[in-house]
Amino acid sequence: MAPLRSFVDVPPESHFPLENLPYGVFRSISGGDPRPGVAIGDYVLDLSAVAEAGLFDGPLLKNSSCFSQTSLNKFLEMGRSAWEEARLTLQKLLSADEPTLRDDEKLREKCLFPVQSKVKLLLPMVIGDYTDFFSSMHHAKNCGTIFRGPENPIPQNWFHLPIAYHGRASSVVISGTDITRPRGQAYPAANSPPYFGPSKKLDFELEMAAIVGPGNELGHPINVNNAVDHIFGLVLMNDWSARDIQAWEYVPLGPFLGKSFGTSISPWIVTLDALAPFACEAPKQEPEPLPYLSEARHVNYDIPLEVYIKPAGLEHQFLVTKSNFNHLYWTITQQLAHHTVNGCNLRPGDLLGTGTISGPNQESFGCLLELTWNGQKQLSVGDSSRNFLEDGDEVTFTACCKGDGYNVGFGICTGKVLPLSS
Amino acid sequence: MAPLRSFVDVPPESHFPLENLPYGVFRSISGGDPRPGVAIGDYVLDLSAVAEAGLFDGPLLKNSSCFSQTSLNKFLEMGRSAWEEARLTLQKLLSADEPTLRDDEKLREKCLFPVQSKVKLLLPMVIGDYTDFFSSMHHAKNCGTIFRGPENPIPQNWFHLPIAYHGRASSVVISGTDITRPRGQAYPAANSPPYFGPSKKLDFELEMAAIVGPGNELGHPINVNNAVDHIFGLVLMNDWSARDIQAWEYVPLGPFLGKSFGTSISPWIVTLDALAPFACEAPKQEPEPLPYLSEARHVNYDIPLEVYIKPAGLEHQFLVTKSNFNHLYWTITQQLAHHTVNGCNLRPGDLLGTGTISGPNQESFGCLLELTWNGQKQLSVGDSSRNFLEDGDEVTFTACCKGDGYNVGFGICTGKVLPLSS
Repeated sequence: MAPLRSFVDVPPESHFPLENLPYGVFRSISGGDPRPGVAIGDYVLDLSAVAEAGLFDGPLLKNSSCFSQTSLNKFLEMGRSAWEEARLTLQKLLSADEPTLRDDEKLREKCLFPVQSKVKLLLPMVIGDYTDFFSSMHHAKNCGTIFRGPENPIPQNWFHLPIAYHGRASSVVISGTDITRPRGQAYPAANSPPYFGPSKKLDFELEMAAIVGPGNELGHPINVNNAVDHIFGLVLMNDWSARDIQAWEYVPLGPFLGKSFGTSISPWIVTLDALAPFACEAPKQEPEPLPYLSEARHVNYDIPLEVYIKPAGLEHQFLVTKSNFNHLYWTITQQLAHHTVNGCNLRPGDLLGTGTISGPNQESFGCLLELTWNGQKQLSVGDSSRNFLEDGDEVTFTACCKGDGYNVGFGICTGKVLPLSS
Repeated sequence: MAPLRSFVDVPPESHFPLENLPYGVFRSISGGDPRPGVAIGDYVLDLSAVAEAGLFDGPLLKNSSCFSQTSLNKFLEMGRSAWEEARLTLQKLLSADEPTLRDDEKLREKCLFPVQSKVKLLLPMVIGDYTDFFSSMHHAKNCGTIFRGPENPIPQNWFHLPIAYHGRASSVVISGTDITRPRGQAYPAANSPPYFGPSKKLDFELEMAAIVGPGNELGHPINVNNAVDHIFGLVLMNDWSARDIQAWEYVPLGPFLGKSFGTSISPWIVTLDALAPFACEAPKQEPEPLPYLSEARHVNYDIPLEVYIKPAGLEHQFLVTKSNFNHLYWTITQQLAHHTVNGCNLRPGDLLGTGTISGPNQESFGCLLELTWNGQKQLSVGDSSRNFLEDGDEVTFTACCKGDGYNVGFGICTGKVLPLSS
């Protein structure tokens, strides 16, 4: 099938052709409330303007107030039929053959804005709760080996359930937000009091995250085979981590201040519909999962991931690792079903992080903890090297699925490390 | 000082005399939006009606829209000066000597509703994030001994920082909400697959929780000596726990599904101003805390706590344990300062649980895990006994500070265990 053509100019390398149409929330730099939009090439299509012009028909016409909100939560709550209808409508509206918007200059001026020069991208949804899983076996194995030794590095429970912890929702920030190096306590040397000061082991974690759609009522679990209808799409996520703070605090209740100083997500939610052509078989699970985690359609997505570091004062960023979403052992649908099996309620806009996505080889590890083996080795970053992040480092994640003549990409998730002001 | 007198009839044993005036949110059973109120005796004073009648003066008159909200969040954000002004105004308005409301029947009908017959109490605030600490040394010691043995039951870090984990905000429910027994995985017997089914070790945890006021911007910690200005008040909290699910899942990332099926809080937030007469010295800390946790005013509150269980079909509830808020080793101000020291932002309405509050003796342990030593002993409940909770059990917490001729009480936090429907 030939790539779809839009009347909006879409550069060949763009992450955002008509096949993608990821959702975000933006504010015009000339003012006005935040509103939902979809990316098309270098432009954003203002969904509040599209709705106001009456360009949705079917059920969405009646419910198009979901696009005159300052977040996507109401649209997320509406579920798959609304998402599919919106996708069909918008693909048609933006196609090269459709005159409605193409030939109406006034309407185009109301609806389409160049992203670079005219808008500011914001968090696309209000996040009620943020959960972070731990679903890459390579990551679990590496961390276990580093912290607990090479004998049985992966805890017994890991193969039976997708382990997770609750993260901090308040400090989830949009890509481009600077991250201040956190201060905290770290493991003391023998018989001395704990260290207190700026973290000496600041790290990134290469993750993606699922955005929850309708969700469920308290006490009513979601069946694993229906879970896909509760996931709107995916974003890139950097789960910034202070390894020294984390190592000292995490026994017995898990990560807390080692993570809660900031978590960055990319601004565009790529829908599962756009990712459908990149579905691939998920890893075989051994032992076989319990029935409530056993799914008829056990799929991952083939999403190549890259991490770059740009040291302070340099013009260029340097590739430091390459991984792939398809390394996840537990799928996002298994994660969601497990999350609700006890009756826990998910709400529209909840964020489910995958955990660090590491591949099997050194070149595909998803964080500096693994890449430098807890700081024991140096990682080359251009002419310099790192064991952990330095002040001024800018860390950028990107992901792009390659279709036949088109991309379905995620743009970037970036953030710069600021020094702690004294 | 003689107790204050209100023109509203306040029974002598009431938890809610003029000295208390706790805040909540209610809905009239005859309809209308949820709105904030304060409890006085068996009545609730409708703050939206008080504001509408122009009875606030000073800064609150200009900002009285904080009381025409469906939650207390806006009032919480306004901070201590607004809280103090509101308290003074309301104590005066409700006092026996003040004619404004006392002598105006029409206004009284608009403002005062009997709680039992005319209103439904709701969650008092929108909870952005819920954090649970682990600050009773007796509880930490008992849990450590049960799970890891009597050698060094308390982890080394515990004495240096108030350990905490992020809890699930979506499943925090108001007192009176039934709790369905959760389903989940539990630790397998040797060489067999994990158990899956209804939890066999359902427990309560006797906690209190602080409600955050203004909070802080990301990257700007709150000094421990200013922390008190960021805490509006306290509620009772039952952190329902499934011990079998928790024990299997919690390594290495902490509690997740063993807790996220429901957390109950009491409807009335008792302010720190109302609790001021019950402030008492907090336990001496050894080793001395790091400077960022060292506070000029190191206080707890003397709040006697009681837990009752009412088995299904019985008329009477039975006292099963008595503890006191003053057993906390880490104070709520230390908890809050620690929470933000890495730059993590707190928002108005955030919920900070204390962790289970156990005293030093068997009779003061704060959960069945400790009271029955992980089910090894039976606890008497009237003529029956328990090692963990049974279906139909109704668990009720209450707390009441005894002043000189008056109470400052918390009412109750209650919930009944429902069987899992198949």
